[in-house]
Amino acid sequence: MTYCVAMNLEAGLVFLSDSRTNAGVDHVNTFRKMTVWERTGERVLVMMTAGNLSVSQSVINLLNEHLASAESPNLYNAANMFEVARRVGEAVREVDRRDAAALKEFGVDFNPSLIIGGQIRGEAPRLFHIYAAGNFIETTNDTPYIQIGEAKYGKPIVDRIVRRTTTLSDGAKCALVSMDSTIRSNLSVGLPLDLCVIERDALAVKSHISIGQDNTYYAQIRGQWGERLREAFTELPNPEWL
Amino acid sequence: MTYCVAMNLEAGLVFLSDSRTNAGVDHVNTFRKMTVWERTGERVLVMMTAGNLSVSQSVINLLNEHLASAESPNLYNAANMFEVARRVGEAVREVDRRDAAALKEFGVDFNPSLIIGGQIRGEAPRLFHIYAAGNFIETTNDTPYIQIGEAKYGKPIVDRIVRRTTTLSDGAKCALVSMDSTIRSNLSVGLPLDLCVIERDALAVKSHISIGQDNTYYAQIRGQWGERLREAFTELPNPEWL
Repeated sequence: MTYCVAMNLEAGLVFLSDSRTNAGVDHVNTFRKMTVWERTGERVLVMMTAGNLSVSQSVINLLNEHLASAESPNLYNAANMFEVARRVGEAVREVDRRDAAALKEFGVDFNPSLIIGGQIRGEAPRLFHIYAAGNFIETTNDTPYIQIGEAKYGKPIVDRIVRRTTTLSDGAKCALVSMDSTIRSNLSVGLPLDLCVIERDALAVKSHISIGQDNTYYAQIRGQWGERLREAFTELPNPEWL
Repeated sequence: MTYCVAMNLEAGLVFLSDSRTNAGVDHVNTFRKMTVWERTGERVLVMMTAGNLSVSQSVINLLNEHLASAESPNLYNAANMFEVARRVGEAVREVDRRDAAALKEFGVDFNPSLIIGGQIRGEAPRLFHIYAAGNFIETTNDTPYIQIGEAKYGKPIVDRIVRRTTTLSDGAKCALVSMDSTIRSNLSVGLPLDLCVIERDALAVKSHISIGQDNTYYAQIRGQWGERLREAFTELPNPEWL
């Protein structure tokens, strides 16, 4: 499985993905699930994928193939983010037409789930969740975040913390705490992580880092969060009827 | 859906269940998912159920039916908790034989998931997770808790806090925090809650309370936990690369 979370905040966009892929438990690998397309000053796009890896990779390859020819509709000549989301949805449908029937014969569901977000000059940053049918939804002020994959473990902390006005720094921190809770409770999500932050109107990636076992900041977050959580728990009143 | 969690601690057993049942989102009801069988001083048993409500109720009815005749194998004449778990498993299989085929015709899975725990004089308290096939697993010192239903949202906090040596009071508190996180993130889990605590060797229920909107302790836990969590989050260091 996978866990990816992205936020569309007033200050910009935050994307975080893990990198574990597994087919059963005896076939576990590391594959990055984040793809970045950037034309500094003009547009910056980030995509994250969950579901069957062959499907995800096919979608990415198709999108890159289209980039090669300037005439064909692609991610670099899409006029706005809505059009970007439609083109990603189209790529998903193309893979569905090619592969879904064959996959089904082998009992494999066609179940991709994607996040695409970014900013194109002249528009505000936007963030979309693309489903297996190629349709999609966009974040709003009320729900500024999207999760795909093993989303449930890390949802409570995001629900409690993330608002549209959350800073980029707090957004990234919350994404990492949410990921830590998921990794502790689910073997199919694992390091290294990819964290990408895009400042509003910068039209470039502000920060794109890979976080492995040796990342000091992540280790600090992990340790301190667990400790503070236990402290906060201890300070909660005990039930008097026990 | 449902969320139930139970713990087998050195000091005794803790059981917590919600009470929301839904078929779609437009058919939502309140049904208690906890059943207690008690013969003070001799045995005390608590069962919680998740999955299709008609299946859960049939299992409970069958078990109660067997209690009526002292000769038939039932929960009151089972020699030990292993035998109790087998009898619950048998009841699940009986419902499967009667109903599963008919349910399948209507596209409804036979998917009950049950927790049965308690203590019978002469034995330590024991706790079992019973699957749809009637087979079951028991808690161990390493994994002293069982969750059924919408288990993922509330798993991280249980993973961080609950050990075999956790006190009954902390166990109950942790179960309530875990339930609160689940209720906030998932509409299909809701109040009122049933909380049942059994002290080791008491062979009787120590505390069995219903927790609704107006329960002061739960309201305190909800408010304070959210607040402390946000405090703890604020105190985490910010990433320096942002």
